[in-house]
Amino acid sequence: MTHIPGIVITGASGRMGQMLIKTVTDSDQARLVGVVERTGHDWVGQDVGEAMGGQALGVKVTDDPLEAFAQAQAVIDFTAPEATLDFAALAAQARCVHVIGTTGMTDEQIAALEPASRHAVIVRAGNMSLGVNLLVQLTKKVAAALDEDFDIEIIEGHHHHKVDAPSGTALMLGEAAAEGRGVKLSDVADRGRDGITGARKRGDIGFHAIRGGDIVGEHDVLFAAPGERIVLRHLASDRAIFARGALKAALWGQGKAPGQYDMVDVLGL
Amino acid sequence: MTHIPGIVITGASGRMGQMLIKTVTDSDQARLVGVVERTGHDWVGQDVGEAMGGQALGVKVTDDPLEAFAQAQAVIDFTAPEATLDFAALAAQARCVHVIGTTGMTDEQIAALEPASRHAVIVRAGNMSLGVNLLVQLTKKVAAALDEDFDIEIIEGHHHHKVDAPSGTALMLGEAAAEGRGVKLSDVADRGRDGITGARKRGDIGFHAIRGGDIVGEHDVLFAAPGERIVLRHLASDRAIFARGALKAALWGQGKAPGQYDMVDVLGL
Amino acid sequence: MTHIPGIVITGASGRMGQMLIKTVTDSDQARLVGVVERTGHDWVGQDVGEAMGGQALGVKVTDDPLEAFAQAQAVIDFTAPEATLDFAALAAQARCVHVIGTTGMTDEQIAALEPASRHAVIVRAGNMSLGVNLLVQLTKKVAAALDEDFDIEIIEGHHHHKVDAPSGTALMLGEAAAEGRGVKLSDVADRGRDGITGARKRGDIGFHAIRGGDIVGEHDVLFAAPGERIVLRHLASDRAIFARGALKAALWGQGKAPGQYDMVDVLGL
Amino acid sequence: MTHIPGIVITGASGRMGQMLIKTVTDSDQARLVGVVERTGHDWVGQDVGEAMGGQALGVKVTDDPLEAFAQAQAVIDFTAPEATLDFAALAAQARCVHVIGTTGMTDEQIAALEPASRHAVIVRAGNMSLGVNLLVQLTKKVAAALDEDFDIEIIEGHHHHKVDAPSGTALMLGEAAAEGRGVKLSDVADRGRDGITGARKRGDIGFHAIRGGDIVGEHDVLFAAPGERIVLRHLASDRAIFARGALKAALWGQGKAPGQYDMVDVLGL
Repeated sequence: MTHIPGIVITGASGRMGQMLIKTVTDSDQARLVGVVERTGHDWVGQDVGEAMGGQALGVKVTDDPLEAFAQAQAVIDFTAPEATLDFAALAAQARCVHVIGTTGMTDEQIAALEPASRHAVIVRAGNMSLGVNLLVQLTKKVAAALDEDFDIEIIEGHHHHKVDAPSGTALMLGEAAAEGRGVKLSDVADRGRDGITGARKRGDIGFHAIRGGDIVGEHDVLFAAPGERIVLRHLASDRAIFARGALKAALWGQGKAPGQYDMVDVLGL
Repeated sequence: MTHIPGIVITGASGRMGQMLIKTVTDSDQARLVGVVERTGHDWVGQDVGEAMGGQALGVKVTDDPLEAFAQAQAVIDFTAPEATLDFAALAAQARCVHVIGTTGMTDEQIAALEPASRHAVIVRAGNMSLGVNLLVQLTKKVAAALDEDFDIEIIEGHHHHKVDAPSGTALMLGEAAAEGRGVKLSDVADRGRDGITGARKRGDIGFHAIRGGDIVGEHDVLFAAPGERIVLRHLASDRAIFARGALKAALWGQGKAPGQYDMVDVLGL
Repeated sequence: MTHIPGIVITGASGRMGQMLIKTVTDSDQARLVGVVERTGHDWVGQDVGEAMGGQALGVKVTDDPLEAFAQAQAVIDFTAPEATLDFAALAAQARCVHVIGTTGMTDEQIAALEPASRHAVIVRAGNMSLGVNLLVQLTKKVAAALDEDFDIEIIEGHHHHKVDAPSGTALMLGEAAAEGRGVKLSDVADRGRDGITGARKRGDIGFHAIRGGDIVGEHDVLFAAPGERIVLRHLASDRAIFARGALKAALWGQGKAPGQYDMVDVLGL
Repeated sequence: MTHIPGIVITGASGRMGQMLIKTVTDSDQARLVGVVERTGHDWVGQDVGEAMGGQALGVKVTDDPLEAFAQAQAVIDFTAPEATLDFAALAAQARCVHVIGTTGMTDEQIAALEPASRHAVIVRAGNMSLGVNLLVQLTKKVAAALDEDFDIEIIEGHHHHKVDAPSGTALMLGEAAAEGRGVKLSDVADRGRDGITGARKRGDIGFHAIRGGDIVGEHDVLFAAPGERIVLRHLASDRAIFARGALKAALWGQGKAPGQYDMVDVLGL
């Protein structure tokens, strides 16, 4: 039992939190040792399994993260930027691996992770799936191999609750395409195309955000030239892939040197 | 020979003009009897076959439309709104069927066709292909059958020279979806989605305009609900389908009562 | 409570069985009153909620279907052909609506439902989703509207556990296309295309069965002519749509005259 | 003029032959110096431009390949295996670069090119497009990066005249996937899936050949795992891409050492 890392999940009651709890308890390579919710949430003090409507798991939900982290080897955290900064400091104090799937962090917030990463391993990624991280790499490679005769367009689809457009993953793919071409995305991004736009500008990278139903996440990178097209596509149909990727990161980080890492490191791509 | 309708093509030197000339000369159900270009164009006075870089066709390009229309039973016209209004008056004078594939006409310009249509047959359509007109009808039917649990998004793709977004055909599909639901498109259209948009508004119809390479024209109508999606898709790979549709309209119009018609009439859908 | 129909689920421990139990218990328009498994199954005698790993639901799993049916207004049954025939007789005896989602029934087995349908309502469908049943109707309509210049191909995708190819839904779509054209599917079906096949035979309907991952069910009906294509597509991403359709059928059948019905009746398409 | 390579096209009257002639005459980097058809063909002796229904090009069609090759720096050849072997010997004699787009060659026929390649440059590829050759490389890389949790399926579409299934390009993609996984394609290929097949065998590579309309050539490589999918897609919409690739190969081969090359060499991928 001692060699199986103990994991804490933050933001337990959310959709990703519950998915993470299920993924950790289903795994024989990790143990669930703590579950954190914010002070005042009605899950605090309950057994987390019962709070989720199932059988008891023997782990009580707490609003004291440091106490939880002190018994763990890793924290998996899909919450919000401010909370994640607080958790980073506490995880560093407890020498826990901190896996961050939180999105929407500003450049300043990302920079503020630096002190924590001097004392503990941080793995942070906009998207934890194997497939998306592979797609990012392919996009960069293909953009570098093809010239600007190939117009690049990034088309993504998500469920109708999503509040931002385009998705963080679409922007990550756009960054990869721009990097492959040796340009800055902010110089070439064409978002929200509508009206009398004139002919497409050579070298632009277009973005399109489809919203509908409960689509988990779909991304196309289109390279269109006269007479031929290449499409690199990723379809996510189950949020469990993000939870499995996060758990993989938590296990991978055990024994690594302190510092900041991403999924390309974890997946060895 | 006398029962085979004689056809005039306007805007001869453009991409659609040349496609129309080829379609009419390849057909054994119609004869090319005239070809019109604007005064000053260097094709005027030349044999049109030679002007197109091929063998002579025995038809000289003229800048006098009335002279050309006087010998014809139909005019096929994919030009610009102002020119089309002039041609409509002349075609009515010559009692020719006037097939209009011109796009971008305002409501006022469309209303201005009315006098001509009292004397001659006008067939006007934003898209002359069999498939697109069928798709428009299916879209209306499906939108009427499904409730607003199904989010509607219209995604179109065209070549990188196209100057407007979304395409006229995409808007036609949007109108059909709105009509099926009993709402006005202008009340529910969501164009150029970008940034912090908030959750998708129930009942909205989204539009996306992909531009790249030499894509002839592709349209998806997506109906996305929790757990399932329906997609109605049309792919055009050859502009000849629009020319064939226009010729079909020219032949269909022979002997019909004066008035305004569209491709749904022609195709008997 | 008396006006809310009581439902029995057969084949409780299977993937669809559990999905049905969850759908009924989540609904406020129906009550779960019985759950059936085969004699000897270790769920028999247990509370079904606990057997599924959650909290007690107050309904014990039984191996005596007649006893269960006697307290119910409807039975929802996604099991196997032989079991379904037995359940049909018992449901008729109990005057329960019998909703049959069982696949793989032979023509003889379907004919054997006839006596039961003289005493009770039977709703039977190869696919219970709204979207698929709509797609079947569109396919028939489009096949009737287009001539044989449009080659028809049906492409389906399912998870890697599926043992038959093509899917029952793909065959249902093929039947609809053949009916639209006024031909027999068995005369024109082209399955397993491979090797030196010669040119495609005009009028054929091709089938393709993609298998991979955990794809729930995807179906494309392609109509391909020179220069243009129409695609009618359905994507199922959650088996819950089949359970919701089955529950809808069970409610719809209350008070209807005895007889055999399908989802087109239920959905009023 | 002397530094612009002279090109001979074989199989002039076929669809690819005419496309090649047009591509070479449109280019300012190459000159059309000869055109070959088989003895007895009615184009022999005519000016090739006029034979194609256009204006004279100043090049007569010949049935004497050696005479034509003697004035040229390269031969582009999309004919049939037996003819290609004859042309290879003659091209070697004339020290011409021989670009071979002929498909359906057996291993023996490919081996029989070896003597010619000791004296001249041969560039041979099953598909001359930039995009397809890039896709082949991506397929190999992705297949190597992902384990057998990802089921591989290759889906291709072509026009209804095509006589073989799956396409040569689909098989080339299958070989690349198998190579990436370190297995032999013949051990894992699953073609013509139909009937009661049982569950999909882990590690298999499935093939599907869609036929319809005038589809130029479309290829999908699907990697499907539980919860996510990657698709690598190539769409060809204009045969000119194959002609442009072949011309690029003819120009690239100038001054190279004798030997056999493929498009990966030419494109520097």
